Amino acid sequence: MSNTSFDLAPVLARAEADFDGSVQRLCDFLRIESVSTDPAYAVKTRAAGQWVVDQLRALGFEAGLRDTTGHPMVVAHHPGPPGTNAPRILYYGHYDVQPPDPLDLWESPPFEPAIVEAKHGKRIVARGAVDDKGQVMTWLEAFRAWHAAHGTMPVPITVLVEGEEECGSPSLPPFLEANREELQAAVCMVSDTSSWDIETPAITYMLRGLMYAELTLHGPSRDLHSGMYGGAVLNPINALTRILGQLHDDEGRVQIPGFYDDVAEPGAEELAQWRSLGFDEQAFLQEIGLSTPTGESGRSPLERLWSRPTCDLNGIVGGYTGAGAKTVIASHAMAKLSCRLVPNQDPNKILAGLRSFLDARTPPDGRWEIETFGMSPAIRVPTDSPYLRAAIDGLGDVYEKKPVLIGCGGSIPVVGMIQSILGFDSILVGFGLEDDRVHSPNEKFEVRCYRNGILSHAAILARLAGMSA
Amino acid sequence: MSNTSFDLAPVLARAEADFDGSVQRLCDFLRIESVSTDPAYAVKTRAAGQWVVDQLRALGFEAGLRDTTGHPMVVAHHPGPPGTNAPRILYYGHYDVQPPDPLDLWESPPFEPAIVEAKHGKRIVARGAVDDKGQVMTWLEAFRAWHAAHGTMPVPITVLVEGEEECGSPSLPPFLEANREELQAAVCMVSDTSSWDIETPAITYMLRGLMYAELTLHGPSRDLHSGMYGGAVLNPINALTRILGQLHDDEGRVQIPGFYDDVAEPGAEELAQWRSLGFDEQAFLQEIGLSTPTGESGRSPLERLWSRPTCDLNGIVGGYTGAGAKTVIASHAMAKLSCRLVPNQDPNKILAGLRSFLDARTPPDGRWEIETFGMSPAIRVPTDSPYLRAAIDGLGDVYEKKPVLIGCGGSIPVVGMIQSILGFDSILVGFGLEDDRVHSPNEKFEVRCYRNGILSHAAILARLAGMSA
Repeated sequence: MSNTSFDLAPVLARAEADFDGSVQRLCDFLRIESVSTDPAYAVKTRAAGQWVVDQLRALGFEAGLRDTTGHPMVVAHHPGPPGTNAPRILYYGHYDVQPPDPLDLWESPPFEPAIVEAKHGKRIVARGAVDDKGQVMTWLEAFRAWHAAHGTMPVPITVLVEGEEECGSPSLPPFLEANREELQAAVCMVSDTSSWDIETPAITYMLRGLMYAELTLHGPSRDLHSGMYGGAVLNPINALTRILGQLHDDEGRVQIPGFYDDVAEPGAEELAQWRSLGFDEQAFLQEIGLSTPTGESGRSPLERLWSRPTCDLNGIVGGYTGAGAKTVIASHAMAKLSCRLVPNQDPNKILAGLRSFLDARTPPDGRWEIETFGMSPAIRVPTDSPYLRAAIDGLGDVYEKKPVLIGCGGSIPVVGMIQSILGFDSILVGFGLEDDRVHSPNEKFEVRCYRNGILSHAAILARLAGMSA
Repeated sequence: MSNTSFDLAPVLARAEADFDGSVQRLCDFLRIESVSTDPAYAVKTRAAGQWVVDQLRALGFEAGLRDTTGHPMVVAHHPGPPGTNAPRILYYGHYDVQPPDPLDLWESPPFEPAIVEAKHGKRIVARGAVDDKGQVMTWLEAFRAWHAAHGTMPVPITVLVEGEEECGSPSLPPFLEANREELQAAVCMVSDTSSWDIETPAITYMLRGLMYAELTLHGPSRDLHSGMYGGAVLNPINALTRILGQLHDDEGRVQIPGFYDDVAEPGAEELAQWRSLGFDEQAFLQEIGLSTPTGESGRSPLERLWSRPTCDLNGIVGGYTGAGAKTVIASHAMAKLSCRLVPNQDPNKILAGLRSFLDARTPPDGRWEIETFGMSPAIRVPTDSPYLRAAIDGLGDVYEKKPVLIGCGGSIPVVGMIQSILGFDSILVGFGLEDDRVHSPNEKFEVRCYRNGILSHAAILARLAGMSA
């Protein structure tokens, strides 16, 4: 059976004609204060999920909220056109947002979307503008345009929108396990990443993995007066800095045993493609008040960010940290350490290496307490995937510049969960920009990026409709 | 002119007969919640000063509260017996106490003194029991016994009791400067230290000095997402641990340039006397849950604690320190560092050395912010002083064991201020024990130590009365 052929032009025309409505609907969504980490917002968070359900029902989806032990999941299904042979696509997103603090740094209230004129034209400023409400709306508004133009979706679609992404998605793995059959699809489409720049679309095909651990070094059984004990007993802060200070050598290489054993070097072609992107290292550094790159010597910045594993201390605390002086020797000190991992590295093997690194340096009477928070392997989507091809072609239908394939230094754990539990790949097509202030005050989404996102998803759907499952 | 000769026996008899009253009066003093660091206690803190004034007036002192920009000073004078030629003695103490938190660890309310039976007999449990209300009361009750037995003090006495010792004595230096003439004396008597053990009295003749600095390393202009930037930019926590991890070499020697240049080695006789004290290193360590000494190799623990300078990190903080994982690269990280100094070391020279240690290791784009909080040189009271001799003899009149001369790892800044501003030495005769839980929940003072303290101060006064100014 061949697939129905749909004309894309009227879909794009509807999207353009209704774009002011798309902006208004995004603003409606942004007004719902769905802060998932704060129990005080639980009712509002659920309301944001229900808002998505209502939108999808209006577009012919069978949609509902599914309760979890945390915030509910939005699950929706559309059969696609009658008799279709096209692949089913799973669209993933999240309706929860980061807390808006610090509130005093916002130029307008975080949950009252403001339309502000800036260098790229209008932008929408609000918590969640780009992460992830605005990006969820790029495909939801594309669905709306398809529904308006042809009365149906061009392919079978399943939608999964969670409300706990900003607090580590605790309900997602058990939900995927429990609903593996219902959520089956050919590929997952995720819009939670960035374009290369406002003119150049991008598909992220590599994501670094993560090993995140909290390390506490215990020493004396209580806090001590440094005058009475200093110089004669173990000081856990002294010891912790001494040990963690050895994590990198003078060339910036991580000293955890076996750290680089399984790291694959990118191919010459891949490196050449990255070079052709013309990454502006000075601009990258200047934007954050720096001028000198650090990290492993002999590697380009994109290599360091995309293809090399790292080890960063994300937090450290011990002893007296208030104002003024207190001459205490703390009984313990704690650090949070994370390693960004690249393909082939096993997070558990890296953790084992970290343990032996620490054990080899434990001072007499010292005792480690180690807790892990994130263990996700790196992801690499095969570049010869037909779904990736469809996404590339769809973006090419909308943008004047060709899409680029990029890596991402960060991790998107859901991609690994879908891979390991549901068994299929994800395509990461995102429309954010680097300066969108994700998780920070004055988060924004460029209106031009929003429009291009809607048109792109509409076009990608047309490309997917031409495929056979 | 020769001094009136006073009989000590009736003084000691009065002190013994009235000892229950001494305990009751200490409990009255302890009930006044004089927490100097918390403005909510300002009225109560002043009331504790007034309580001391009232006690001294009842004993024939001309006494009053003197206002400062902070809490008031108690100043009192007694002329001594008519026509005396004995030296004037300044008694220093403080009527303020540390905050009682954490409250839930107290076995009885911190400001309701409890008399508890333990291994050394009864003890008084309350905030301030030993630091410093109980120790102030050892000499105040000795004054009372002298007043009861002979109707006068045996020597001219000046009293100075401050209310800001627990918050760094900010008003003390200007007060000493402004009242230099009025506060002149031959020597200062301070009871804010410990006995060697419950049977062995001690005079502290060496105090380490202090150089306390807060170091902040600044890097990126804002907190960064470690996925987007990790491995390619300066991470201030990584850099801070790397730099501070080099403060000591493998033998525990401090690596600040010039750190040991001016350190005098103790003489052979002094080392022999310390060895004769029979310091129990294992018991010292066991009490705090440790078994292995650390610090400079090749030095005994008392040497390390009394005669060697140290460098300890007292606090460290940076990045995310809450529950769970946050993959942030912090824009800055801070540590609090203190050096205990020994005689001849100049705190400003050590600070200059620390600055050059840090500057030599500053990473590109890193910037230090350094604030200092304490700069006091070490103190060493000449062991041939006649006042020290009088104190040794007075203690010998009360205890069966001979007093020992000890060092102290801590600093008592007032001793340095009196030396540099008023121009005379202090004699540190203290009656605490190592396990008194100073600054901690369930602070206590052994009743036996309190009694011995009162009798000792009574006897020391008799010895001083035999001297000529």
